[in-house]
Amino acid sequence: MFEARLVSSGTLKKVLDSIKDLLNEAIFDCSDSGIQLQAMDNSHVSLVSLNLRSDGFDKYRCDRNLSLGMNLANMAKILKCANNNDTVTIKAQDNADTVTFMFESQNQEKMSDYEMKLMNLDQEHLGIPETDYACVVRMPAHEFARICRDLTQFGDSVTVMCTKEGVRFSSSGDSGTANIKLSQTSSVDKEDEAVTIEMQEPVSLTFACQYLNSFTKATPLSAQVCLSMSPDVPLVVEYQIPDLGYIRYYLAPKIEDDDN
Amino acid sequence: MFEARLVSSGTLKKVLDSIKDLLNEAIFDCSDSGIQLQAMDNSHVSLVSLNLRSDGFDKYRCDRNLSLGMNLANMAKILKCANNNDTVTIKAQDNADTVTFMFESQNQEKMSDYEMKLMNLDQEHLGIPETDYACVVRMPAHEFARICRDLTQFGDSVTVMCTKEGVRFSSSGDSGTANIKLSQTSSVDKEDEAVTIEMQEPVSLTFACQYLNSFTKATPLSAQVCLSMSPDVPLVVEYQIPDLGYIRYYLAPKIEDDDN
Amino acid sequence: MFEARLVSSGTLKKVLDSIKDLLNEAIFDCSDSGIQLQAMDNSHVSLVSLNLRSDGFDKYRCDRNLSLGMNLANMAKILKCANNNDTVTIKAQDNADTVTFMFESQNQEKMSDYEMKLMNLDQEHLGIPETDYACVVRMPAHEFARICRDLTQFGDSVTVMCTKEGVRFSSSGDSGTANIKLSQTSSVDKEDEAVTIEMQEPVSLTFACQYLNSFTKATPLSAQVCLSMSPDVPLVVEYQIPDLGYIRYYLAPKIEDDDN
Repeated sequence: MFEARLVSSGTLKKVLDSIKDLLNEAIFDCSDSGIQLQAMDNSHVSLVSLNLRSDGFDKYRCDRNLSLGMNLANMAKILKCANNNDTVTIKAQDNADTVTFMFESQNQEKMSDYEMKLMNLDQEHLGIPETDYACVVRMPAHEFARICRDLTQFGDSVTVMCTKEGVRFSSSGDSGTANIKLSQTSSVDKEDEAVTIEMQEPVSLTFACQYLNSFTKATPLSAQVCLSMSPDVPLVVEYQIPDLGYIRYYLAPKIEDDDN
Repeated sequence: MFEARLVSSGTLKKVLDSIKDLLNEAIFDCSDSGIQLQAMDNSHVSLVSLNLRSDGFDKYRCDRNLSLGMNLANMAKILKCANNNDTVTIKAQDNADTVTFMFESQNQEKMSDYEMKLMNLDQEHLGIPETDYACVVRMPAHEFARICRDLTQFGDSVTVMCTKEGVRFSSSGDSGTANIKLSQTSSVDKEDEAVTIEMQEPVSLTFACQYLNSFTKATPLSAQVCLSMSPDVPLVVEYQIPDLGYIRYYLAPKIEDDDN
Repeated sequence: MFEARLVSSGTLKKVLDSIKDLLNEAIFDCSDSGIQLQAMDNSHVSLVSLNLRSDGFDKYRCDRNLSLGMNLANMAKILKCANNNDTVTIKAQDNADTVTFMFESQNQEKMSDYEMKLMNLDQEHLGIPETDYACVVRMPAHEFARICRDLTQFGDSVTVMCTKEGVRFSSSGDSGTANIKLSQTSSVDKEDEAVTIEMQEPVSLTFACQYLNSFTKATPLSAQVCLSMSPDVPLVVEYQIPDLGYIRYYLAPKIEDDDN
């Protein structure tokens, strides 16, 4: 028997929004410690890693480890039916072939349940080595989303150049050349709006815009995003989910960039 | 000479929105007692019945009974030109082949008139027998609209099951099974948000989602919707139009449901 | 060296929005007195004349007259990247083949620059004779936009009839006939909402809706629009850009109208 309950279904909707562009279906690994999901995106270029801690749920019970394979488009249909302040409960019997989502309104006068068939999906667990990164940039999540969206207009790829002073995002194509520079924030009045840089050595790496834009679907989950970069190593784009866990995206830099 | 005046054109816009999905054209029967419209929808499945009482208008004059056949798409074009707080006057001469809509702004510095050709349409008056219904459910109109919209994602039809405790709406299809239960409201602080049930015997009836969704276009007219149901008899979905009248939709239950 | 700076990029965005529907590309003539643009629209029917005075900029320097030929779609891509309260600076070297747009956030922690290739475009300067107009109508810009949009539903052209009492806009077609009358405002409490008419003789002229609708893209620039009309002479639709200049559109009346 698996049962996990969140007082606000809004967070679960945002979690799903952050992965459903990249993944058509996915396995949610449920254990005593929480729910984990790790998968390559549909085109097998980037990697998504989601972690929701059991203590972040308002109620959590997992008698046996379960791997729940779900169609994310169908899951999205179901979550669309919840109001953001509905309580959501996810339930599955051991060895069952369905999962149930239950929504309760705050006054408990509306109760809904949605049953969805589970899928048999192949597990592919990739080890992600711990790395010391050359540069770690923390910045407002909405600012990162805006920059990715803006630069996509000019080219297919974005070059991120990070020094002690700041971080520069560049793109170019037929319609022109674009450079956006963010300085490290001097005074941090609003922590959410800060740009902070931890640098061991400067880096300059190029990434495909398309994937960065997909990663920014997680923006509503978190005020800040953290970009960890080292030469020849996948970029990590991390969004903390307050009190619940995190979602991380991994994307290898483009190699052509080194040749130019 | 026919002349009917409403201080706020917003209501007339909402009335038109509630029928123009179902009907391409319609006859507005104008008499001393008010304006009535009764018509089968374009696919001849459901029935629309609209009643606007003469005393609900700010000015009303109807010297002779008139049947005004109107193209509802053209009428919608005209009403789109009114601001919601414009005064609207509908005018037609006896035996005329046009109808005129006049809009006046509150400060009377903008006056518009729109003349539209009338159509010759066949009258088809259907008697609707008065029925005692097994179940009459009153609920917030926006909640009913939301439920119809949500369940449409899962299947083509919705089963409504009504008991003394509450009403359950269900739908199922390839992507899963959905059940939404509303309990009768215990305390009625906000009358508009109440769910009330008058039951003589429980019913379980199945209806086509598509038509229910079209009926909910009337939602902006009324805080509450009233569903009247009996076995083997058309469902009545009624929206009161405050101080002016009502719109009712009739839809026969699906027969296959009884076989399953 | 050319350099022009505006504290708020919002104005420049609105200026571009007011011309990019009519023009694919255009020459911005930069001189000591400011920036001017004059061009026939893509279909060579109407004329656009934009004037931004040098003293309206927060910083302005133009060592030599420059004619900057720009692709407006690419310029729009760039301006989309600015926040409305970013400071914008336009820069070009003498004899350069590129122009640079620089955006700075208010806290100066985000700086962006966009370089765009200039185009070689043919100049075509049309002399616009000064005219005394028979009627000059000033009215709220949003009201004019609304009227053009509404009447477009009924026909391809709008007849504007102006007398001392007011101005009437008419259109007709298969779905009906529409007349919108605005009276000259009696008391002018809100200057922006006033309708004022200076008339030497009444006029009645007919114009193509399509172009009027394109002109109203300038509505966000100005609270009021000014229509200047004389028989057989192009209509002038003018929007003042507060503290910076103006945009004027010229459109010849339809000749068929005189025949009817």
